[in-house]
Amino acid sequence: MIFTGRHLIAGEWADGGPTFTSDPVTGDPLTVFNGGRDEVDRAAKAAEAAFRTFGWTSREERARFLEAIADAIEARGEEITAIGTAETGLLDARLNGERGRTTGQLRLFAKVLREGDYLDRRYESASDANPDLRLMQRPFGPVGVFGASNFPLAFSVAGGDTASALAAGCPVIVKGHPAHPGTGEIVADAILDAMKTCGLPKGTFQFVQSNSREAGEALVTHPLITAVGFTGSLGVGRSLFDLACRRDTPIPFYGELGSINPVFCLPAAMAKRAGDIGSGWAGSLTMGVGQFCTNPGVLIAKESDALEILVTAADSALADVDDAPMLTQGIAQSYREGRNAAVDAGAEAARRSGGSDRRNAPDLLRVSGTEWLSNSRLHEEVFGPFGIVVAAQTEDQMIEIAERLEGQLTASIHLEDGDEALGQHLLPILERKAGRILANGWPTGVAVSPAMMHGGPYPATTVNGTTSVGTLAIQRFLRPVCYQNIPQALLPADLAK
Amino acid sequence: MIFTGRHLIAGEWADGGPTFTSDPVTGDPLTVFNGGRDEVDRAAKAAEAAFRTFGWTSREERARFLEAIADAIEARGEEITAIGTAETGLLDARLNGERGRTTGQLRLFAKVLREGDYLDRRYESASDANPDLRLMQRPFGPVGVFGASNFPLAFSVAGGDTASALAAGCPVIVKGHPAHPGTGEIVADAILDAMKTCGLPKGTFQFVQSNSREAGEALVTHPLITAVGFTGSLGVGRSLFDLACRRDTPIPFYGELGSINPVFCLPAAMAKRAGDIGSGWAGSLTMGVGQFCTNPGVLIAKESDALEILVTAADSALADVDDAPMLTQGIAQSYREGRNAAVDAGAEAARRSGGSDRRNAPDLLRVSGTEWLSNSRLHEEVFGPFGIVVAAQTEDQMIEIAERLEGQLTASIHLEDGDEALGQHLLPILERKAGRILANGWPTGVAVSPAMMHGGPYPATTVNGTTSVGTLAIQRFLRPVCYQNIPQALLPADLAK
Repeated sequence: MIFTGRHLIAGEWADGGPTFTSDPVTGDPLTVFNGGRDEVDRAAKAAEAAFRTFGWTSREERARFLEAIADAIEARGEEITAIGTAETGLLDARLNGERGRTTGQLRLFAKVLREGDYLDRRYESASDANPDLRLMQRPFGPVGVFGASNFPLAFSVAGGDTASALAAGCPVIVKGHPAHPGTGEIVADAILDAMKTCGLPKGTFQFVQSNSREAGEALVTHPLITAVGFTGSLGVGRSLFDLACRRDTPIPFYGELGSINPVFCLPAAMAKRAGDIGSGWAGSLTMGVGQFCTNPGVLIAKESDALEILVTAADSALADVDDAPMLTQGIAQSYREGRNAAVDAGAEAARRSGGSDRRNAPDLLRVSGTEWLSNSRLHEEVFGPFGIVVAAQTEDQMIEIAERLEGQLTASIHLEDGDEALGQHLLPILERKAGRILANGWPTGVAVSPAMMHGGPYPATTVNGTTSVGTLAIQRFLRPVCYQNIPQALLPADLAK
Repeated sequence: MIFTGRHLIAGEWADGGPTFTSDPVTGDPLTVFNGGRDEVDRAAKAAEAAFRTFGWTSREERARFLEAIADAIEARGEEITAIGTAETGLLDARLNGERGRTTGQLRLFAKVLREGDYLDRRYESASDANPDLRLMQRPFGPVGVFGASNFPLAFSVAGGDTASALAAGCPVIVKGHPAHPGTGEIVADAILDAMKTCGLPKGTFQFVQSNSREAGEALVTHPLITAVGFTGSLGVGRSLFDLACRRDTPIPFYGELGSINPVFCLPAAMAKRAGDIGSGWAGSLTMGVGQFCTNPGVLIAKESDALEILVTAADSALADVDDAPMLTQGIAQSYREGRNAAVDAGAEAARRSGGSDRRNAPDLLRVSGTEWLSNSRLHEEVFGPFGIVVAAQTEDQMIEIAERLEGQLTASIHLEDGDEALGQHLLPILERKAGRILANGWPTGVAVSPAMMHGGPYPATTVNGTTSVGTLAIQRFLRPVCYQNIPQALLPADLAK
């Protein structure tokens, strides 16, 4: 494929805006059109026009479309990995795996559509006193999606937000992430192929390249956009959330903004396997250069000899991890700033990586429970391979630390026989703080399945109770509609009996 | 019962704040404490403490609590109707019926709890590659509820928001509506009785009297409050929604703010039964002095002889409706201002009531489709017995009017054989505008049932896709939590197998 740096608007590859130059880890930079308000406006109008057909397609039609997208992505598999690794610095194996996850979740939503349970259909027959009532879930309308930097396939152009919104029956406009414009273009091209194969309207899926705030703000504030999916930083995410709330007609902004994914290590587990926990932690912490939403950035345990064993094991495992390129120069720089700020805030560097330019190696810090509690700067996410050990004075202080946590995607507990009492104390606290609670494991590696929850209280997600991974993700783009005494001829096919 | 005008905080009747004097339609005014920031803060802390027990009660315990509330309300039935009619001017029969609806929805949620389907439990067994995942819905935490003026029982202290939040496992703090403080107090007393009977923590349900903005704003912005239910005006509702969004940790504000509930009358239906439609409309329009959320404030039909028959029939039916007291002086005054503004905006008064002081009679206005389209002032809700006929020049103009509507709770169509084509054109448009679409009926009279949707796109509700009536209302206060590899000893009882 020859990359053009163009937008996909109303079924056509279009120039538009000035240009920017991409910054790949390897290979030649691309010249990319920098879309803005005009491109978003044209796309939103085409999406609205498309919704009037696409929003009333059958579930089978949409299932075939999702499968056609998966097929078209697979047909471009090697090429996607080639441009993806060049742009992001992520390894071949990682991007091949992520491609499988991406096509897997498209096919999973095809299955969800064929089963139809997500419609939550409810029937009440007419009687003398009561009308005939039928309820089912219907799509919102055009949806805006922001490609994420850290999953150039699974959370980007054809990622979970796009798959779940298209499954719901909502046309999608993706604002591509400027860190991987080539990967974005080739995936958008795959979706265009699938649209043509399935004979869908031209505004069903659209793609706007941009590396400025204008396109994103235009997407969130456009009157024809009915919901937005976003994965990114707290600062950018909150400012877009605020724009979504301030509209004349507010819309839901489903943002996943940040999480430090705490890991609580209870005494009996520490006594039994502190070394394994330490090395396991190091492994989870450094996957994808630490650039996972569920990266376990903080580990809490009681001050003890076992904790020294854990730190030594973690440190030793981290020593084997070379520095590696991060997704962007900006992310690499922010990582070092965050790491330095944690040190300035009183955390002791057990292992300090240095790092330079776009590359960083893991950092391991430690701090006492009392210091952690007294300094909220230490509670903030540092996006990358950054781990901080919090050495609590007492079990009560571990509980206090749990109470003080902000909202999280995940919270983990390591426990063994003898830890039940403390576990039972911690679990109800952690349940309020996180969307997923896990025992004796690591939070990285998120199953795309019906029972997955990948969201949590703010700031993990802006809309508590929603998930961007798993089959429940479709609910973000649906609203129940009740049909009362509607004649059969006018009832939607899914509600007729 | 002797009314004290006190708040119910942490299980005790408490003074607090200066006082205000109630303004009943009949009988003696009450002196009521005017709660503010301090009362809300004490209540929020007690609610948070209560959640740590109440949030983990069994479904059976909560079902019995809801039934005990219903019993305690019934035990006070006559007294509730006596104070309710005096405060609101609504008729005995209406308040007796509304009491039945209120206890009925409490018992319906008890049934929902015992069935347990609302938990949406999902199980995935562990395999070599996959962990054990279990998901279910869990309560948010303390919830704030605003009593509504227009349903002093069913949408107030023990109304749908309270019933669904308590069912979910969320402690509730109600800010009483100052238009019915006595009705509020006696119902709060019934809930207190039920709390004692069931041995629940003192902060499970609390009640703050207030006639100022301070208490409401304090409730929406208190850090311990996790969600809010509100029914009221667009102006107040939007300002509270904005506060909820601007918090450090934003929370969902489930506001039902206003709806004109359009009624489309198609040509064949008009030819067959224009007179019946006109008189039926007048009946729906004047129930409860027009103070229903689903009041059908606008009727759209093609200019025709049949439309003249409809207007004559409606006018004649409205002539039999005496003026009646509205819920508050302010509502009565706003009604006349809204009516006058519609006339100033070009609507012709077919029947103009005058009205004075707290009393109003119905108004019937008419306007051409072209005028309606050109003046958005005519699209605004006038809360009360206000109906406006829009005479469309063409069927295309009827469609254009449908496209221009804001979000609605309901949209109605009257149609007969021969109207299918126009109906099929209108239905997909109306489906995007309203939460409930009904044929050949009137939107007032909302079933409290599994298939009911009482919400709609903004401004009908602030969170599109949520309902304040029916069993789906419980979903507003729940969030999914995923439990991964959690040992049986720590799993919530509802998830153990």
